[in-house]
Amino acid sequence: MECDVLIIGSGPAAWTAAIYTSRARLSTVVAAGSIQFMKGGQLMTTTDVENFPGFENGILGHELMQKMEQQSTRFGTIVLNEDIDKLELDHHCKVQFKATYEGGVVQARSVILATGAKVKRLPIPGSGDHELWNKGISACAVCDGPLPFFRNQELAVIGGGDSACEEAHFLTHYAKKVYLIHRRDTLRASKIMAERVKKDPKIEIIYNAEVVEALGKDSLEAVKIKQNGDVFTKEVRGLFFAIGHTPSTELVDAMGIEKHPNGYIKTHSDSTKTSVEGLFAAGDVQDFRYRQAVTAAGSGCMAALEAEKFLSEVHAGGIAG
Amino acid sequence: MECDVLIIGSGPAAWTAAIYTSRARLSTVVAAGSIQFMKGGQLMTTTDVENFPGFENGILGHELMQKMEQQSTRFGTIVLNEDIDKLELDHHCKVQFKATYEGGVVQARSVILATGAKVKRLPIPGSGDHELWNKGISACAVCDGPLPFFRNQELAVIGGGDSACEEAHFLTHYAKKVYLIHRRDTLRASKIMAERVKKDPKIEIIYNAEVVEALGKDSLEAVKIKQNGDVFTKEVRGLFFAIGHTPSTELVDAMGIEKHPNGYIKTHSDSTKTSVEGLFAAGDVQDFRYRQAVTAAGSGCMAALEAEKFLSEVHAGGIAG
Repeated sequence: MECDVLIIGSGPAAWTAAIYTSRARLSTVVAAGSIQFMKGGQLMTTTDVENFPGFENGILGHELMQKMEQQSTRFGTIVLNEDIDKLELDHHCKVQFKATYEGGVVQARSVILATGAKVKRLPIPGSGDHELWNKGISACAVCDGPLPFFRNQELAVIGGGDSACEEAHFLTHYAKKVYLIHRRDTLRASKIMAERVKKDPKIEIIYNAEVVEALGKDSLEAVKIKQNGDVFTKEVRGLFFAIGHTPSTELVDAMGIEKHPNGYIKTHSDSTKTSVEGLFAAGDVQDFRYRQAVTAAGSGCMAALEAEKFLSEVHAGGIAG
Repeated sequence: MECDVLIIGSGPAAWTAAIYTSRARLSTVVAAGSIQFMKGGQLMTTTDVENFPGFENGILGHELMQKMEQQSTRFGTIVLNEDIDKLELDHHCKVQFKATYEGGVVQARSVILATGAKVKRLPIPGSGDHELWNKGISACAVCDGPLPFFRNQELAVIGGGDSACEEAHFLTHYAKKVYLIHRRDTLRASKIMAERVKKDPKIEIIYNAEVVEALGKDSLEAVKIKQNGDVFTKEVRGLFFAIGHTPSTELVDAMGIEKHPNGYIKTHSDSTKTSVEGLFAAGDVQDFRYRQAVTAAGSGCMAALEAEKFLSEVHAGGIAG
């Protein structure tokens, strides 16, 4: 299979890019992954999305992803429900990239990498996907913190870095109290962030501690905390993981693509161009600051317009002959 | 009136910022402008928006803006249907900014400027808002070019710079033929762009020429062109202005805010921070590259998160204390 643009991913960045490139009549393939339940990216692990602009009463994460997919196929996007196993540069002909999956090969003149990031989670009993995950347990305070469920409740955040402090602070807008649970005896966050949470009367930091179990029937009711050998229970209605994300860069690591020290793909400033010509990165695989569905969608659009420009310049200048 | 965040504007950047700040429980005022028909930004001058992700069958521009406004007010945004006449820094107290309108004053601890840009139009008879504007006449090839209306038709683009060449090229994906009408005898575009349109068999450049009238009953049917003193008629179903945009920066010019040479607000890279502390710029007032509704929305979200962070740092550090 050959195409102008191969988009790898299936979150808001991927579908928005596909809407734009296929609407611009570039032949577009989205490699959306083989596992149905993973398709749609991190939004699939959430329920109500209240902050994607245009849905005045909110929308379910998987519905939003379905709508975007339908919108892209309406303009001619081909959806390949396969995992790309290998992505290689192929400079010998007009086709620049070669992507291999179990059943075949896609040859693409440009690639938009929108593989996203995975939230780091801890294997805490009770917190699994089929247990209390998403029933009081979340990995995004900005997304989920404002939900009515968490209002005026006691909540817990796991972590001790800048993100954890930011999330704890953010949650104080809604919560009665926020416990920041950190496994060391000092916060890893920057001084200003650490000072802020220490001063905040709504935040209590529990040092040298880890959550060892999540308890609750239909939703989270409490967590068991182990501190200096003792185990005690705190009643909390929310538990937020804030121990970081891992960008999914496996496919491009072998290309020697430039990355930030934290592992995210480096893009030119205010752009989605990467250090590999013809390869653009959009969404959470390159964004470690905002990580919102709408910012991912915006960067998907940018990648599409930049890919379009790249392809027409290759045409005009004859770079790839 | 006092608030945490004053957002000036009423397009996708403004409403998305408002959704995020008010959902984060920051008191939020959107100064959306006094003229009902202007409210909603450039999307109000378009009809069907096909490329905003999440609307699989497209959505009317004004409906999308209404939905976003409703979504923001649902979280507590206060909408002020007034024009801000003057925006001043006010360093004497915790309130940083003072915005004056006919009926009063808004004091705001931070400002998100989302005033957008105005398309440059020529006063061509027949092309006005109540004439053929939006009935075959447009100022955005990426937005409107793919509409069925323009398929396999002859179209005209006015301009001779990079944008005009890009738009002409983009339209060749759909059109039978594209006339690029330029008032000088050489294109102003970069060499590579100029070469591309000159080589393109679907593009014909008409030099030393200007459109003097737009003709048509219910929609555009032809344009009258004046070239070297002669006037002739070309049958075209589309006319695209590509002579640039003017960012609406009037409110912040007096602050000595940093701008790009082209007049757009300068923001830190991959950020919406401007040279004025506590003032963030989102959407087309700072974006001269992508200018899409979804990129504007993405930057509105960024501005909201950055304003939230700024306000909590001011709190913690006591800068304005």
